[in-house]
Amino acid sequence: MVMTTKDIPTLPRDARTIFRRGEWTQQTGGLCMGYAQANLAIVPQDVAFDFLLFCQRNPKPCPLLEVLDTGDPTIHTAAAGADIRTDLPKYRVYIDGELTDEPTDITQYWRDDLVAFLLGCSHSFEDALMKAGVPMRHIEAGCSACAYNTNVPCTPAGIFQGPLVVSGRPMPPDKAVKAVQVTSRYPWVHGAPVHIGDPQAIGIKDFLKPDYGAPPLPQPGDIPVFWACGVTPQIAAEQARPPLCITHMPGCMVITDLLNSRLAVL
Amino acid sequence: MVMTTKDIPTLPRDARTIFRRGEWTQQTGGLCMGYAQANLAIVPQDVAFDFLLFCQRNPKPCPLLEVLDTGDPTIHTAAAGADIRTDLPKYRVYIDGELTDEPTDITQYWRDDLVAFLLGCSHSFEDALMKAGVPMRHIEAGCSACAYNTNVPCTPAGIFQGPLVVSGRPMPPDKAVKAVQVTSRYPWVHGAPVHIGDPQAIGIKDFLKPDYGAPPLPQPGDIPVFWACGVTPQIAAEQARPPLCITHMPGCMVITDLLNSRLAVL
Repeated sequence: MVMTTKDIPTLPRDARTIFRRGEWTQQTGGLCMGYAQANLAIVPQDVAFDFLLFCQRNPKPCPLLEVLDTGDPTIHTAAAGADIRTDLPKYRVYIDGELTDEPTDITQYWRDDLVAFLLGCSHSFEDALMKAGVPMRHIEAGCSACAYNTNVPCTPAGIFQGPLVVSGRPMPPDKAVKAVQVTSRYPWVHGAPVHIGDPQAIGIKDFLKPDYGAPPLPQPGDIPVFWACGVTPQIAAEQARPPLCITHMPGCMVITDLLNSRLAVL
Repeated sequence: MVMTTKDIPTLPRDARTIFRRGEWTQQTGGLCMGYAQANLAIVPQDVAFDFLLFCQRNPKPCPLLEVLDTGDPTIHTAAAGADIRTDLPKYRVYIDGELTDEPTDITQYWRDDLVAFLLGCSHSFEDALMKAGVPMRHIEAGCSACAYNTNVPCTPAGIFQGPLVVSGRPMPPDKAVKAVQVTSRYPWVHGAPVHIGDPQAIGIKDFLKPDYGAPPLPQPGDIPVFWACGVTPQIAAEQARPPLCITHMPGCMVITDLLNSRLAVL
């Protein structure tokens, strides 16, 4: 029997049990609506200080929801009791910077010196934007948001450095104002936009040709609005080529117990 | 000739030059009005990950303004070009948890493995509160804010743990509402209050007998409002007893180039 998204429980804890059993290895978009989904990055302790510092220095692309203790595979706050080794649908394993495996369980790779980082994701604020009446063109078209490399450098930290990657969303100018207001309330999931308007000002040659994802679908009069994107730390981690790095498979996120609506700071 | 606060330049860069020369070894309160002052903590690299993680897990008491590179004594963002070893009026040096020196210059203690942390301070939001019409009873009386140990534990990280320490300010209830609104905009300098009202609910036996500073001076009808306090990481660092820890002398802060008004996120 093939499972569909309809078969996945709507409570995060129950959905994670399905993933833990290996019964769902697809993307998590659209599952457990209303709950925050998180990016995952796991690195060894000896580069974990550098990575934590990279996140501290670049909080917009790298908003930390939770950092686990060294060697501890259990999430304590964002998804109480979840096992980071099994409770995602699929992972990517990089050894010395090379993608070497895409397993559905990383128990065999786990070590006592690994540190897991959960980072906020823009899906959380898209929910709030739509509720505030800001159109999400890509969701209307059934696509994921597109993203771009910029010529804006992140602040380096030890071995980690790289360009700021941004997601882009076209919208009417009055909705851009609303979008700034709404997302300013959500610093743990990328927060306020980093740029509005001319894509070339941040090194994006053609708004219609993103580096990641399907082309955006602006409507007449739309202005592009750009947010810092969770691809940024992935690029930084790939370029740094640590001995071991494990991430979620793109789209196959950590489903947390945190309600998006509870992530608002104001 | 004895210098007084009137002799200290109002621009942070110039004031730091005076400190660097050892010509001012007193508190920095009231100097360079409008600019953010920061707490300083310096620890060796081998416990710096734990300390950075403690700050990440406890952002209200430990809001990071800047973390310097390992072995780098130069502030790059918060106070461009400042030398962390000389540009404060006075320091405290702890070896194995014992206070061993209170020098005006820590050049002799500097090592290639030290990491310096600058943490935001409530002076910044007091400025904003007063501008919004919230009375600061202690400033009216010429005192510094008082602080209390609570029974609320911080989230531990490695060797660092301890109770949340809070500063307390009495004010009329309608001003308490305004105080929440104003300080919510300043997450880098402790942000919104952690508690309003009954001190005993967070383990404070007597509001009029603080653990740090002079007693508060509530007026009839005032309600106490509590913010996370920068003493929290100091207590955690003292309890952890790392081989070496250097902090600012209480009240002798890092004067940054950051305007308090620019620290607002909304």
